[in-house]
Amino acid sequence: MALTAPPPSDDALLVISAHAGDFVWRAGGAIALAAERGQRAKVLCLSFGERGESAKAWRDGLGLDEIKRLRRTEAADAAATLGAEIEFLDAGDYPLRETPELVDRIVHVYREVNPAVVLTHTLTDPYNGDHPAAARMALQARVLAQAIGYDAPGEPLGAPPVFFFEPHQPEQCDFKPNVLLDITSVFARKRKAMECLAAQQHMWDYYTDLAKRRGVQLKRNAGPNLGLSHGTMGEAYVRLYPETTGTLA
Amino acid sequence: MALTAPPPSDDALLVISAHAGDFVWRAGGAIALAAERGQRAKVLCLSFGERGESAKAWRDGLGLDEIKRLRRTEAADAAATLGAEIEFLDAGDYPLRETPELVDRIVHVYREVNPAVVLTHTLTDPYNGDHPAAARMALQARVLAQAIGYDAPGEPLGAPPVFFFEPHQPEQCDFKPNVLLDITSVFARKRKAMECLAAQQHMWDYYTDLAKRRGVQLKRNAGPNLGLSHGTMGEAYVRLYPETTGTLA
Amino acid sequence: MALTAPPPSDDALLVISAHAGDFVWRAGGAIALAAERGQRAKVLCLSFGERGESAKAWRDGLGLDEIKRLRRTEAADAAATLGAEIEFLDAGDYPLRETPELVDRIVHVYREVNPAVVLTHTLTDPYNGDHPAAARMALQARVLAQAIGYDAPGEPLGAPPVFFFEPHQPEQCDFKPNVLLDITSVFARKRKAMECLAAQQHMWDYYTDLAKRRGVQLKRNAGPNLGLSHGTMGEAYVRLYPETTGTLA
Amino acid sequence: MALTAPPPSDDALLVISAHAGDFVWRAGGAIALAAERGQRAKVLCLSFGERGESAKAWRDGLGLDEIKRLRRTEAADAAATLGAEIEFLDAGDYPLRETPELVDRIVHVYREVNPAVVLTHTLTDPYNGDHPAAARMALQARVLAQAIGYDAPGEPLGAPPVFFFEPHQPEQCDFKPNVLLDITSVFARKRKAMECLAAQQHMWDYYTDLAKRRGVQLKRNAGPNLGLSHGTMGEAYVRLYPETTGTLA
Amino acid sequence: MALTAPPPSDDALLVISAHAGDFVWRAGGAIALAAERGQRAKVLCLSFGERGESAKAWRDGLGLDEIKRLRRTEAADAAATLGAEIEFLDAGDYPLRETPELVDRIVHVYREVNPAVVLTHTLTDPYNGDHPAAARMALQARVLAQAIGYDAPGEPLGAPPVFFFEPHQPEQCDFKPNVLLDITSVFARKRKAMECLAAQQHMWDYYTDLAKRRGVQLKRNAGPNLGLSHGTMGEAYVRLYPETTGTLA
Amino acid sequence: MALTAPPPSDDALLVISAHAGDFVWRAGGAIALAAERGQRAKVLCLSFGERGESAKAWRDGLGLDEIKRLRRTEAADAAATLGAEIEFLDAGDYPLRETPELVDRIVHVYREVNPAVVLTHTLTDPYNGDHPAAARMALQARVLAQAIGYDAPGEPLGAPPVFFFEPHQPEQCDFKPNVLLDITSVFARKRKAMECLAAQQHMWDYYTDLAKRRGVQLKRNAGPNLGLSHGTMGEAYVRLYPETTGTLA
Repeated sequence: MALTAPPPSDDALLVISAHAGDFVWRAGGAIALAAERGQRAKVLCLSFGERGESAKAWRDGLGLDEIKRLRRTEAADAAATLGAEIEFLDAGDYPLRETPELVDRIVHVYREVNPAVVLTHTLTDPYNGDHPAAARMALQARVLAQAIGYDAPGEPLGAPPVFFFEPHQPEQCDFKPNVLLDITSVFARKRKAMECLAAQQHMWDYYTDLAKRRGVQLKRNAGPNLGLSHGTMGEAYVRLYPETTGTLA
Repeated sequence: MALTAPPPSDDALLVISAHAGDFVWRAGGAIALAAERGQRAKVLCLSFGERGESAKAWRDGLGLDEIKRLRRTEAADAAATLGAEIEFLDAGDYPLRETPELVDRIVHVYREVNPAVVLTHTLTDPYNGDHPAAARMALQARVLAQAIGYDAPGEPLGAPPVFFFEPHQPEQCDFKPNVLLDITSVFARKRKAMECLAAQQHMWDYYTDLAKRRGVQLKRNAGPNLGLSHGTMGEAYVRLYPETTGTLA
Repeated sequence: MALTAPPPSDDALLVISAHAGDFVWRAGGAIALAAERGQRAKVLCLSFGERGESAKAWRDGLGLDEIKRLRRTEAADAAATLGAEIEFLDAGDYPLRETPELVDRIVHVYREVNPAVVLTHTLTDPYNGDHPAAARMALQARVLAQAIGYDAPGEPLGAPPVFFFEPHQPEQCDFKPNVLLDITSVFARKRKAMECLAAQQHMWDYYTDLAKRRGVQLKRNAGPNLGLSHGTMGEAYVRLYPETTGTLA
Repeated sequence: MALTAPPPSDDALLVISAHAGDFVWRAGGAIALAAERGQRAKVLCLSFGERGESAKAWRDGLGLDEIKRLRRTEAADAAATLGAEIEFLDAGDYPLRETPELVDRIVHVYREVNPAVVLTHTLTDPYNGDHPAAARMALQARVLAQAIGYDAPGEPLGAPPVFFFEPHQPEQCDFKPNVLLDITSVFARKRKAMECLAAQQHMWDYYTDLAKRRGVQLKRNAGPNLGLSHGTMGEAYVRLYPETTGTLA
Repeated sequence: MALTAPPPSDDALLVISAHAGDFVWRAGGAIALAAERGQRAKVLCLSFGERGESAKAWRDGLGLDEIKRLRRTEAADAAATLGAEIEFLDAGDYPLRETPELVDRIVHVYREVNPAVVLTHTLTDPYNGDHPAAARMALQARVLAQAIGYDAPGEPLGAPPVFFFEPHQPEQCDFKPNVLLDITSVFARKRKAMECLAAQQHMWDYYTDLAKRRGVQLKRNAGPNLGLSHGTMGEAYVRLYPETTGTLA
Repeated sequence: MALTAPPPSDDALLVISAHAGDFVWRAGGAIALAAERGQRAKVLCLSFGERGESAKAWRDGLGLDEIKRLRRTEAADAAATLGAEIEFLDAGDYPLRETPELVDRIVHVYREVNPAVVLTHTLTDPYNGDHPAAARMALQARVLAQAIGYDAPGEPLGAPPVFFFEPHQPEQCDFKPNVLLDITSVFARKRKAMECLAAQQHMWDYYTDLAKRRGVQLKRNAGPNLGLSHGTMGEAYVRLYPETTGTLA
């Protein structure tokens, strides 16, 4: 359920993620940037990652419900830190099952949020079957939400661009970034959000290093003229549909 | 040689094409858009297409020099119509030979123009070997021009993005557009430029139809909200390097 | 149900399409050619496209059943114009669900028709999930129908070649044509069939232009010796399995 | 030089191969089929394979000229057995150098033979650089020969289809066959031609086994209805350009 | 059910195959090698291949249960010949249905066997939908078994490498081998295991020839220094995940 | 010229790199591992990177010869630190020209070193044309050196495996690692070698971070059982030819 109920927005950002932590590591910068610009940013977590991404809690002997509560609290804190709303569908993980009912719930979210931009997982991930499952449902629901004949409240969706955020082992997931996003101005906020995920401390540095690495590539691809500083931080994305534009730049 | 000598510009457009007509069919809209915005637009023709793309003139019995003159005049007229300068390197076609000397000449042009954006052919074209040869040299020269140690006048080049324009049979050239450019506002000018190429009248309609087709796809990908009208005209491009940006949109 | 019941044929054409209109835009020429040669041509529509491809009817305020009737009538008219039978499975669209039961029904059609050639959608289409779903079921059912142990009436199917017909945005669907079909002689009939689909008038010209475009490519690939005329019209296909032949040509 | 000088033919087969033996192992069946149908079949050997494919002769202590003579004799015998003419350009191997002069010589052959079909190597072969070099030149020369403005005797070439024949390790060369050719009726002749290459006896069985294997696949893809017998022999090819046809089959 | 119940092993080999015969043709050498080294080798057959791969038995008029019994006996004999245990899940074939229940059963097998190496089908096979279905389930179950939170007995699985074994038509299945396994020392045993599959006699020679062919390639890729003899026999595999190593060799 | 002249070795490592620094960042760990095991390790630098990779020196006002000397000294120090010999061909950079003469020199090195393993650049790098040029020559020379008929001293080369080392922006170079090498035990040595390249201080941390990142992936792919510690450091490679082995592991 949605923790907050903002007014519909014309340029909302919708992030659809399989588990409770994914949006922080992979898209925290994009979310914080949108929030700072005053856009609505909404994270939709299909599951809590309670079975597949909570190894420490299981080793500590927690029960399933405790783990879900823990993951929910951490993710809600991280979302608040980034300036985003968050909704949990509690659809179960490992495996996250692709069902018509779950897709239908996602369609309803699309119709309610009317996002201008959508972020989700890659379609390939040989290390984690839930990630592609989430991506397939996110894409299918987007197309269904576009159809006037689909039975759900709200107006038909437009054609919001979709960006895949970065998986843990990008090359093995055929992730060839075609967009590098400058998140320097909000990186401190992303770091704070990462630190909300207390059980995964080893990831804080891993994703800080990754942001530096993508920042170096950002500078390399932007060229020296743009005046990007030495401490540029970046996130990498793959744009799925062609960019539509009035200017080549 | 350059027909005009404009002052250096920070946001120039450089179009590197194998033959005299290519820039019109494939990138005329992008050129006209740049010119209308007041940017410098420069077309660099490596050859006149005198052997490989002048079948009618050969059938009419013209000699090589006459054909070159004819192609030069047509291309210069088309460039002027689009608002662009044009320079011819007269390096010969069919085959266009990749030589260190020709690459060096292209480096000099990069250093002089200091383009903000570069357009050229695709790297694959099983129907025309000169097109990939031009693209390979355009890309190699761009990297050489970036090196402070390369011996040519001018400052080292930044990292201008490169876009491949559309080949005649896109699928056979592995051309999967990731940018659709709205050229509606300048299409009439592109059509006039096409009509400067008198010998290839059958192409006028072919590329008008293509612009319509890419326009339909542009609307489809932009979504209904953007208010693109029914008569949207488009050009398709492939961006080679990752886009660098501060906003996902 | 089949509208007509022809005798089994050794060289029948079977077209499996997700929605009621697909076969017209994408394979109308191939169907008309088969019919003109006296072959049996059968179109199998898995759904009417009642939700996802009937935007105008929904905007006009029609109900679901009215829309299905309308689409059925239009599609039946178009099929008759092309010289084909048509059968509707009414399996629902947006989403078209992949179920064992639906696959089994398609197996029965294969066994009854015993096609010499099969046409269907591409396996990739990021704009429309029903199209790949139809293709996957069409391919799965074909393999099942080949097995003598599969429990359905009729003889085991042979190995009919499968051709993917052209999606709306071919490059985005990784559609690289390896067959160009000359439909010049039947194009007028295809145009008439397209005009049976009254609500999609903007598509008539779009697909006429496409036929011209594929015709130009057909001439280019066939070479000047074949004597194809200036007005050649074409359809593009991707052959899935290797061609088996006694002659290279 | 050409060993025979037949009258121009409208449906000639031209096989362009890097070394003296390649055409036998990889395309012997296609050549014999063409010859049996009464078509002109011409093999163009760019080199004798004197350095890279004559290991036994070197180990036996022969000199360079002896080896060339030996390879020429063997290849000529094999060509005669298949019913083909053969011409040797003696351009050197290991490496086979891509030069404008050699490409020009190949253009002249295209113009003289006016082939209806062209066979050559694949564009990728990490085990043998001469093979892709030959293929690149064969393709470049074909395009040049099509240009009326190219300075060589004869009429401009049409658009003969090109087929890549099978490399020694197909998967490593990204060779995904899309044509399987039935060579059963001429296999005995191909075997005899292979036996002309006395130094490579271990290859006779290797390529006989391969023909069986491709034959099994041919039957599998053709289906049981075609009545191919148990002893079907095949050759595999990749068609480079789209097939142009009036019938899907 | 498992026919034998060996003690858990740290370096077990697990082979997951769709039908009862697959493991023999495609991985018999790897299995025999493991068994000879004293490793536990376990074959998991998801179905008997009773509908899709038992054509002769159906033509002979056997009933479904008889066919299953026959296939079970043959497969058990072949496994015993290779030195492997075998378990049959009897999940049905043609189609092999992907269900959460079946995946869960496979997870239990992973947890019980704790394999050091996993072999299964390729993810692409346009000739047989059951093969990719088995592979998808094998991969999904492997990831689920790694999660401590997944509810099944036993310890979480490590990260055993996965190898795809060779499909019947490798190129059509995008099978590009990156591992060639020397099975010379156990080939006689593989041949005997193949001969347990009495109804598919034509396959015995087909897969013997394939082993020779892969053996020739093995020698070619290993180089002359390794001293592989003329009669080297091989099997080809695709390794899915990166190799982890302390030495490049 | 070679700085040292060791006796021929049966398991030498040969690293062929375009510029003087490449081998340190990209393969320093593999080199140090080989040296520690007592293998001969030889680095062949085709150029000094004097024009394209010495920006600081140019900005400091050094001349071409001074820069070459500087780069040579740095690279020699780094090689010595890693335990490798180094040879400079001084073939010029930006561009590194592919000539028959340079390839021939590389063949001579292959014949002299007789490497058991070869490391070089990737075949794709849109940021640096010299890298693929070096790789193409390294691969071509390897094949030439295998031919007994190639005129160079020494025995014909075997078939040493080739590994591509990691480019600066791996995804843009289509670099999908299939080998992860554990360099933990020699990382301190690699760091010291990096510090020999005084002008590129910002790279020291960049490539230390990369080693950590590849180390994390190494652990992830090796699984928990291997006991890799938290501080595992790695290098990533792409193996070009199939691995040949007697064991799947």
